[in-house]
Amino acid sequence: MTQTTNTLVQKHTEGGITTLTLSQPEQRNSLSMAMLDALSEVFTALESDDETRVVVLAAEGKVFCAGHDLREIRSQFDSHEFQLALFRQCSKVMQQIVNLPKPVIARVAGVATAAGCQLVASCDLAVAESGARFATPGVNIGLFCSTPMVALSRNVPRKHAMEMLLTGEMIDAGRAERLGLVNRVVAAEELDGTVYQMAATIAGKSGHALKVGKAAFYRQLEMPLSEAYEYTAEVMAGNMKAVDAQEGISAFLDKRDPQWQDK
Amino acid sequence: MTQTTNTLVQKHTEGGITTLTLSQPEQRNSLSMAMLDALSEVFTALESDDETRVVVLAAEGKVFCAGHDLREIRSQFDSHEFQLALFRQCSKVMQQIVNLPKPVIARVAGVATAAGCQLVASCDLAVAESGARFATPGVNIGLFCSTPMVALSRNVPRKHAMEMLLTGEMIDAGRAERLGLVNRVVAAEELDGTVYQMAATIAGKSGHALKVGKAAFYRQLEMPLSEAYEYTAEVMAGNMKAVDAQEGISAFLDKRDPQWQDK
Amino acid sequence: MTQTTNTLVQKHTEGGITTLTLSQPEQRNSLSMAMLDALSEVFTALESDDETRVVVLAAEGKVFCAGHDLREIRSQFDSHEFQLALFRQCSKVMQQIVNLPKPVIARVAGVATAAGCQLVASCDLAVAESGARFATPGVNIGLFCSTPMVALSRNVPRKHAMEMLLTGEMIDAGRAERLGLVNRVVAAEELDGTVYQMAATIAGKSGHALKVGKAAFYRQLEMPLSEAYEYTAEVMAGNMKAVDAQEGISAFLDKRDPQWQDK
Repeated sequence: MTQTTNTLVQKHTEGGITTLTLSQPEQRNSLSMAMLDALSEVFTALESDDETRVVVLAAEGKVFCAGHDLREIRSQFDSHEFQLALFRQCSKVMQQIVNLPKPVIARVAGVATAAGCQLVASCDLAVAESGARFATPGVNIGLFCSTPMVALSRNVPRKHAMEMLLTGEMIDAGRAERLGLVNRVVAAEELDGTVYQMAATIAGKSGHALKVGKAAFYRQLEMPLSEAYEYTAEVMAGNMKAVDAQEGISAFLDKRDPQWQDK
Repeated sequence: MTQTTNTLVQKHTEGGITTLTLSQPEQRNSLSMAMLDALSEVFTALESDDETRVVVLAAEGKVFCAGHDLREIRSQFDSHEFQLALFRQCSKVMQQIVNLPKPVIARVAGVATAAGCQLVASCDLAVAESGARFATPGVNIGLFCSTPMVALSRNVPRKHAMEMLLTGEMIDAGRAERLGLVNRVVAAEELDGTVYQMAATIAGKSGHALKVGKAAFYRQLEMPLSEAYEYTAEVMAGNMKAVDAQEGISAFLDKRDPQWQDK
Repeated sequence: MTQTTNTLVQKHTEGGITTLTLSQPEQRNSLSMAMLDALSEVFTALESDDETRVVVLAAEGKVFCAGHDLREIRSQFDSHEFQLALFRQCSKVMQQIVNLPKPVIARVAGVATAAGCQLVASCDLAVAESGARFATPGVNIGLFCSTPMVALSRNVPRKHAMEMLLTGEMIDAGRAERLGLVNRVVAAEELDGTVYQMAATIAGKSGHALKVGKAAFYRQLEMPLSEAYEYTAEVMAGNMKAVDAQEGISAFLDKRDPQWQDK
């Protein structure tokens, strides 16, 4: 049951897991304005899609995503308005991932560079195959990866983020794992198995708990400690009123499987 | 010279090191309201306890701490007031550890889950035996670990914290060390040796310097860089007026051991 | 073409790379007020030095930098004014490194302690030889490393920063690398090769892009996510107007080397 959203992003939902696939391999899945618009539209629709509990973000071909479309950018050198709109749309899509009330897992095969690396960093979780590589090479073309670094620097220790940004050099999958950019690295033939097992594990949880928890996670991260505790104590007490929490706790104490109602 | 504070938390002070031991192994040392009240009382008393220079937080039995008491929570499903009071009391205890003017070391044997994992994350330092395991499994019972994640996400890189929170799965001691949740992992038979050597090292420092430094550490972490420097430059210049700093510097230059007066 | 700035800090520029060398090995390159003044003067001059694209911070002798000059501090025990001025001047120098519109790489051989460790942490990048060691040992002399911890705690995971601060113990180069305090560790005989290859790689980029990117990196780090994106989207769109970005993108698409004008 594949639902073709458009020619740029394929969407396929099965067992509560929606896979989005960037489908312009011949353009290295670059984030042209059209691709960003397609992604934005898909994420907006997913917010209220009751069939989707977890999202997997994948890509066709040997390049996961090469960042912006430089030909498009060059064709608009004279339009500051276009450039600003482009980077704003890109920033919007990245934040839609963060704000989506469902977990998003990046399934990374091949190369993820510039805004493509940012895409991986913006997902809640990421699994890469051992040949995957990552870079923020904007500095090589005189255009520092300033928007990608917002996501990168929130995943990776400061000096390592700086090294990627200042040298523009590739890091391999193993280093990406050690730095915290991806959760784990597996052989290419185990990539789908690992990603979909992780997705299925998460899809088996209460959708209400996932929604409450993901939103609170990113929000409390930006607060001072005492404020974060005030806020999350209320979140937890509120979560306790949910049907699923009462069911989950009762099921646990009664040694049975819970029946989620996602509310 | 064991001083039994109450039946829930044992307190033992020797050589400037106070060991607190959660003592409800048959309840998996869960953080019931009674246990939280006991801990809060103990930490309040420790603030002004001149005999205590360093605190070790330990637990009896095979479970370090299993988080909240789900039977107690179920018995109060109808009382939003109780739930809010519970999570607030828990948040208060965690912050008492952070705000205590003496370093706190978690001595982790066995399993630390949910608010028990938060307890470890909230301590200044943590040492675990190699069989220790950690999880934030609230998502499994429909109750996302929203208060535990405040401490977890300030210890562990973002994607790894998210993985623990979204999957609810256990991580072993080695991974906890690589992620920064604990400082080091040792064989079970070396746990006490390592913890108490670390505690003794710290207990040998000026109590005044420890107090000034610990408070400044957490405070400056929440400031922008320039504000952090303005603040800590004043802290250091203030610290220089202390008897202990002048004694410590003189002792160092004169190649003798310092005599601390803790002021 | 060595330009001796003064007797405390040597300055040598070649191929766009300026090496600053702390040159008081017999005083363990300590950050006396005179040394801080010399550094401050050098960094101020570098801001507008068109010949310098990248800075390498090195030191003569077996000690990279031992922190403040304790004899000087002792001679001024009675002057709170002096102490405050000292820690403020030190904080200023550290921030000059962060705010310098050119990348700074620490070349660490030997021991870097207290404010010397802070110096390494304050650089954008750091490479250490395998015998290098690091500590924040102020606690041993009753003077907690409160200003050094501002830089340390922004490089190193929380519990590990706390362990260094509370125990005052040395960590070796390998651990410093695992913790994120340095980017990489190499054999002593490969130190210069690694540092200057990294410096040359970066010196080959557009100076304009480096300036824009470095400033934006530290600024966005202190912002909430949405604000960081608003800010950097404007930075990128602004960067697109630069001669170098248009040249870099055109050169890339035309498969030729870019000619930077640094604007």
